[in-house]
Amino acid sequence: MVTLEELRQAFKPKLKPIIWENNKLTILDQSALPFEKVFVQLKTPEDVANAIKTMKVRGAPAIGITAAYGMVLAVIEANEINEAIKLLQNAKSVMDKARPTAVNLSWATSRMLNKAKQLIESGEAKNVKELVEALKEEADKVFEEELEAELKMGMYGLEKINEGDTILTQCNAGGLATGTGLGTALAPVKLAHMLGMKVSVIAPETRPWLQGSRLTVYELLEEGIPVTLITDTAVGLVMYKKMVNSVMVGADRVLADGHVFNKIGTFKEAVIAHEMGIPFYVLAPTSSFDLVSKVEDVKIEERDPDEVRTVRGVPIAPPNVKVYNPVFDVTPPKYITGIITEKGIIYPPFEKNVRKIVER
Amino acid sequence: MVTLEELRQAFKPKLKPIIWENNKLTILDQSALPFEKVFVQLKTPEDVANAIKTMKVRGAPAIGITAAYGMVLAVIEANEINEAIKLLQNAKSVMDKARPTAVNLSWATSRMLNKAKQLIESGEAKNVKELVEALKEEADKVFEEELEAELKMGMYGLEKINEGDTILTQCNAGGLATGTGLGTALAPVKLAHMLGMKVSVIAPETRPWLQGSRLTVYELLEEGIPVTLITDTAVGLVMYKKMVNSVMVGADRVLADGHVFNKIGTFKEAVIAHEMGIPFYVLAPTSSFDLVSKVEDVKIEERDPDEVRTVRGVPIAPPNVKVYNPVFDVTPPKYITGIITEKGIIYPPFEKNVRKIVER
Repeated sequence: MVTLEELRQAFKPKLKPIIWENNKLTILDQSALPFEKVFVQLKTPEDVANAIKTMKVRGAPAIGITAAYGMVLAVIEANEINEAIKLLQNAKSVMDKARPTAVNLSWATSRMLNKAKQLIESGEAKNVKELVEALKEEADKVFEEELEAELKMGMYGLEKINEGDTILTQCNAGGLATGTGLGTALAPVKLAHMLGMKVSVIAPETRPWLQGSRLTVYELLEEGIPVTLITDTAVGLVMYKKMVNSVMVGADRVLADGHVFNKIGTFKEAVIAHEMGIPFYVLAPTSSFDLVSKVEDVKIEERDPDEVRTVRGVPIAPPNVKVYNPVFDVTPPKYITGIITEKGIIYPPFEKNVRKIVER
Repeated sequence: MVTLEELRQAFKPKLKPIIWENNKLTILDQSALPFEKVFVQLKTPEDVANAIKTMKVRGAPAIGITAAYGMVLAVIEANEINEAIKLLQNAKSVMDKARPTAVNLSWATSRMLNKAKQLIESGEAKNVKELVEALKEEADKVFEEELEAELKMGMYGLEKINEGDTILTQCNAGGLATGTGLGTALAPVKLAHMLGMKVSVIAPETRPWLQGSRLTVYELLEEGIPVTLITDTAVGLVMYKKMVNSVMVGADRVLADGHVFNKIGTFKEAVIAHEMGIPFYVLAPTSSFDLVSKVEDVKIEERDPDEVRTVRGVPIAPPNVKVYNPVFDVTPPKYITGIITEKGIIYPPFEKNVRKIVER
């Protein structure tokens, strides 16, 4: 088995969605991908808030990391250390409002604010320069902790990949969404490629938002990993024809009994994989587990019908047609071969084993 | 049970894709739907050939019916009956070339040419006027035989629909594709509606060609039948949530052992329906059965990768990405509840019962 240290060494991504250099924050504009590769410099917390609002940065972990660096930007221009806390509180308030439902966002800004308070109170940071330096290190930690969890998921996931394998995924659970360049569901296949294994991916386009055709395809091509794009309708045939060795997807929420909420379309892949005898893996950090809710408690969000009636602004249906546009679906544990976390792989029976691993 | 005669009376479609009136042929331009409702008058066999080439008419039965009327157009301007056969041979040649793989096309033009020969040789048609009149009746027969088969499939399919039902379909196996305004997979639900039952349909958009969002939605709205559009990714969730009472799809080819080749995406609906305990019906006239081929003999056609890389001309993926774009998939008999033909419903075991009904 490959060690974590070997993976840390092997991980040399070409894709770098969030870059902090010489006290400057630069992000890859996800809203322009894959048609244009635009890097945007963010100079203030207001710039960060706007980038989040306009989907230039998307994906919960990526938003958290960007906002952590946004907090560093807030104090860079401070004249005196006494004004730092006020500037940080203001920056937190501006950024938190950019996407109120993103838990990682307010979690990251709170962590940075608390760290600043502790640094100043303890006397560790005696001036603006020292505070900026220490906060920058804290933001780096937010980034590195995320990457570390992904490397561990990648390490466990690698056990499930053989030379020559083709992996079917869904949506974009990659390094754009997490901001690290690695990702969750894509971590094993990316690391396999970086270790010199021959692997490839089949990416369904993932309507209505097309994260598959726009983002997953882009980031795999960027790393030089062979990828084939299919329509969502072709997911069944590629499994029927055994063009796929395993399925690896991300998760928005995993329940204690193993029910998985993830991007719409995940459920159909799981059912077909089960019927065709193809292993189906969910990759999710333990922070995505909800050990309290029951499956019937989780409301499935519905979005704007025009996302279905149009594609990139072009109409594809009569404008007056009724639409059902759910964002997520739910996959029952029966169809899941294993859930790969940074603490190890959870196998059935999930109602027993989820808690055992998550609460480890 | 409703009789065929009652269905003939009840069938009053608002949708009329092919109209012959006062020796004039008018078609509804399918390539403009659903964004514009354009009727085009076709005056010559060359006009018909062009309409077929440019997808103004599509769907095997619709192409056959249009070409049959195209043969009538060929003799309308004739001066003498002696030139009729030459004109018809020429018209057949021009139209057959418009879509060489469409079996219904050359079948219809051959039938019309042979009829003309027989009419002239027997002396039944003594002049151009009599020939036009008799050929028009023959083209009407092509139309009516198609409609009669659909009414019968509708009659058998109605046994599977209850008041208040919602039916999931796929692609467009409706009255646009067949030219009659009724269709195959949509026949039961349309007739149920025309008989005053409360029924509704869920239509997946059906990428890459979007026959679901463009055509199925259009023709159901035209008849006033409630329809909800979903992405192909949401097919699983609507069955998981039991928003659907049954699935009804068409077929491009049915084998003797019950394997069904149909539009890409059909297989996934069948597998999920099977897992969720929802009945899955295929509607296909016995002319679509291939009792000779084995499943491994049937080649699945692949089409232009740009159909997947773009939607209505707008790019949705990096232009250089590799694509797999199969037109059909194959559904094993295990997942099929019944195959509804104009000769009755075929139930498992299909390897025994398909021949029994088809060769009846």
